[in-house]
Amino acid sequence: MRELLVIGIGAGDPDQVTIQAVKAMNRADVFFVIGKGDEKQDLVDLRMGILDEHMRGTYRVVDITDPPRDRTPSDYQGVVDDWHDRRAAVFEAEFAAVDGVGAILVWGDPSLYDSTLRIVERVLARGVVDFDYSVIPGVTSVQSLAAQHRIVLNRIGRPVHITTGRRLREGLPDGVDDAVVMLDADCTFTQVPGEDAEIWWGAYLGTEDEVLISGNLRQVEDEIVRVRAELRERKGWIMDTYLIRR
Amino acid sequence: MRELLVIGIGAGDPDQVTIQAVKAMNRADVFFVIGKGDEKQDLVDLRMGILDEHMRGTYRVVDITDPPRDRTPSDYQGVVDDWHDRRAAVFEAEFAAVDGVGAILVWGDPSLYDSTLRIVERVLARGVVDFDYSVIPGVTSVQSLAAQHRIVLNRIGRPVHITTGRRLREGLPDGVDDAVVMLDADCTFTQVPGEDAEIWWGAYLGTEDEVLISGNLRQVEDEIVRVRAELRERKGWIMDTYLIRR
Repeated sequence: MRELLVIGIGAGDPDQVTIQAVKAMNRADVFFVIGKGDEKQDLVDLRMGILDEHMRGTYRVVDITDPPRDRTPSDYQGVVDDWHDRRAAVFEAEFAAVDGVGAILVWGDPSLYDSTLRIVERVLARGVVDFDYSVIPGVTSVQSLAAQHRIVLNRIGRPVHITTGRRLREGLPDGVDDAVVMLDADCTFTQVPGEDAEIWWGAYLGTEDEVLISGNLRQVEDEIVRVRAELRERKGWIMDTYLIRR
Repeated sequence: MRELLVIGIGAGDPDQVTIQAVKAMNRADVFFVIGKGDEKQDLVDLRMGILDEHMRGTYRVVDITDPPRDRTPSDYQGVVDDWHDRRAAVFEAEFAAVDGVGAILVWGDPSLYDSTLRIVERVLARGVVDFDYSVIPGVTSVQSLAAQHRIVLNRIGRPVHITTGRRLREGLPDGVDDAVVMLDADCTFTQVPGEDAEIWWGAYLGTEDEVLISGNLRQVEDEIVRVRAELRERKGWIMDTYLIRR
């Protein structure tokens, strides 16, 4: 493989890809699709739809099967680290088999809670294969959430914090009052104290299944928990994120 | 005006607009261009170039001149507030004069350190004009910075903080070790203590004038200060941002 393109493709709406991403896709000979095992057929279909819509020539798709991963480890960092090593070995073998330009499509943007760039760096660090690579930025679900709710993430002159459900459980740092929360399978917003906090929540952002709920946290939290469970049950998976403002 | 579209157009590269943004542009009859007075001709040209490249039909451009603003107020929030009120009155008059669909193009994304949505809400709250509006998300300079440096903003399972130079001067909150800093005209990174911090800095991201510098903060801070001053002197303006990791 001569070159690898890591391409952000937006939060779900096929029109949310950039012109730059479309041009990059059309330079690729091979797309690596990472079957996480837990990625549902809807998401695979959505991604293949994006390729179908924007590709003008022929291309090849190579499935990469991720090694299994402990989802509830006590040593979180260590387990993730080991998993990334095993992952790198799998990717190395697939990259070595390709002649030309390879590409990996990433939901949202490769810079936010995505492991693709870390895998690529690990593959290169192993020193067995060598290639140029570049990153094409994409619209994140954070931007998509804000756009659909028509909100500004920051208050005037103030910071925005982007964090995980796991971190939110430990409480927000002092001085952090506006937080976007990603990767929260446990509805941790219900554990944020106070009567005055507000929430802007969104699921399946940018797709036809999109659902938005917003309001005073105490008034809408039960509704979000209920709707989220129903949606997840119905589709078998959910992708959601929210802004919390206290 | 029947409808207003607030469209994020990416960080500077004309190819960084999304398909969704191009489709939205092509629904607009009138583009409102906000001449901030301090916006340089380069930026106006870059924006007009984006329109020229992506518009298929005819369109009209209306310049809106911002009211003057105190840039170094002691009562920061109050002065910004008053300025937004005066701004809303100017926008209201321009919106009222338009028949059809209006659009405002926003650098990066309307959800991050941009006042357009606040102005729109103020105009609507005045109750004189009424219209539907929607927001089209864009790639931010934060994503562009990460892509050009090929980095992930967050460390594994950890938060990312997005803040301003003004806030960084007061110190980062405890528990915040990865911060993207925007709107920093004073090279506040030089005031971040410690020998082990790292910085990834970029100016004019995504344009042909792009400059990137990264490394140990203490080792590269003087170079960034010098290069930033030279670039600003040469072009008359600068747009830059950085990630600091301690």
